[in-house]
Amino acid sequence: MLKLIIGNKAYSSWSMRGWLAVKQSGLPFEEIVVPLYDADWDKRREGDEFAPSSGKVPILWDGDTVVWDSLAIVDWLADRVGREKFWPADDSARGMARSMAAEMHSSFAALRRECSMNIRQRFPDYTPSAAVEADLARLYELWAQARARFGSGGEFLFGDFSAADIMFAPVCTRIVTYQLPLPRFAIPYMQAMFLHPFLQEWVGGAQAEDWVIEKFETLPAA
Amino acid sequence: MLKLIIGNKAYSSWSMRGWLAVKQSGLPFEEIVVPLYDADWDKRREGDEFAPSSGKVPILWDGDTVVWDSLAIVDWLADRVGREKFWPADDSARGMARSMAAEMHSSFAALRRECSMNIRQRFPDYTPSAAVEADLARLYELWAQARARFGSGGEFLFGDFSAADIMFAPVCTRIVTYQLPLPRFAIPYMQAMFLHPFLQEWVGGAQAEDWVIEKFETLPAA
Repeated sequence: MLKLIIGNKAYSSWSMRGWLAVKQSGLPFEEIVVPLYDADWDKRREGDEFAPSSGKVPILWDGDTVVWDSLAIVDWLADRVGREKFWPADDSARGMARSMAAEMHSSFAALRRECSMNIRQRFPDYTPSAAVEADLARLYELWAQARARFGSGGEFLFGDFSAADIMFAPVCTRIVTYQLPLPRFAIPYMQAMFLHPFLQEWVGGAQAEDWVIEKFETLPAA
Repeated sequence: MLKLIIGNKAYSSWSMRGWLAVKQSGLPFEEIVVPLYDADWDKRREGDEFAPSSGKVPILWDGDTVVWDSLAIVDWLADRVGREKFWPADDSARGMARSMAAEMHSSFAALRRECSMNIRQRFPDYTPSAAVEADLARLYELWAQARARFGSGGEFLFGDFSAADIMFAPVCTRIVTYQLPLPRFAIPYMQAMFLHPFLQEWVGGAQAEDWVIEKFETLPAA
């Protein structure tokens, strides 16, 4: 069975992507949460299980094979269960979906740095910097193009839920957390995302872990 | 025919990856070099051809489909010509190759920032910062693991030349340019890389463009 190692569901945006990818594959998996900011984390990452990714999450174990990094996990799983679960069948759509996923993976630095994922919080007084505004302009340009050109078959960026949506899912939570400006066209898309059962399960898990972490902190130090 | 838009061969590390990927696909392609630091660049990126990637290179046009970002280009081409030209067939090897390629795509920030690619230059007096040293330690750990576990069938990271080598190729040039420390085990790998015909063609192109750019600069301003 697959084994997925992730960080806190409230904070770890890359874990969210890896977890959504595993859900999307339909394969059964065991989930292991290793809270960030946990005193045991540094000890645990010494273990073999965490070594391959230099202590970062998510990490997917598929039998004896280890895959780290969310985008690698997406295409590893596409290898396993078929590309059509993750990427559009249409060539032009898939070209754009792959490009958008890769751009999310390597770019949007200001948005990621200044608006780190924090699912249980709201910061209504946050004012985006110019760099974040530029990232948002690029983000909405990409979303608008994907929806306009390839989204007519469904509510997601390329119609059906795809790897592109998986890569942008944490951004959707940040838009809510930091009350970022949202163009009108993107409202139905955001709604579709938050109505998706996988996103709901993750967000529910993030809410629940508040209590779990509190329990952690009351444990005596080892 | 494929059309690939790239930056200067001496400086644009992401272009190098996209170009190597197209070469590896075996498909015929037209190459369009848009020099960075060219006064015309800002004008040109207004054009349709450059718009999809917000002015960044590389950009691949495959008929009416546009794909930007080197890692997306790799898997776009794998979709076109078959995964086996880019990724190892063995599951465990492919899991690691995909993870390493994705980690190169999103990480090694210090190495990329402080030792930007500059194929025609040598900086023998450069001293790596602690952050670059940490990146190098991680880099060599990955190379060593790949070579030890999966490299026995050839001279490259996973035996045959693969997408993992494509993603690390610009790093090989930086090691030479900045005279970075290199562990003994990595010397034959570096040699194999610089003996690969695709790398030689790129490096030769980088040498040649010195003259071309000089010609550019003597043109009267438009």
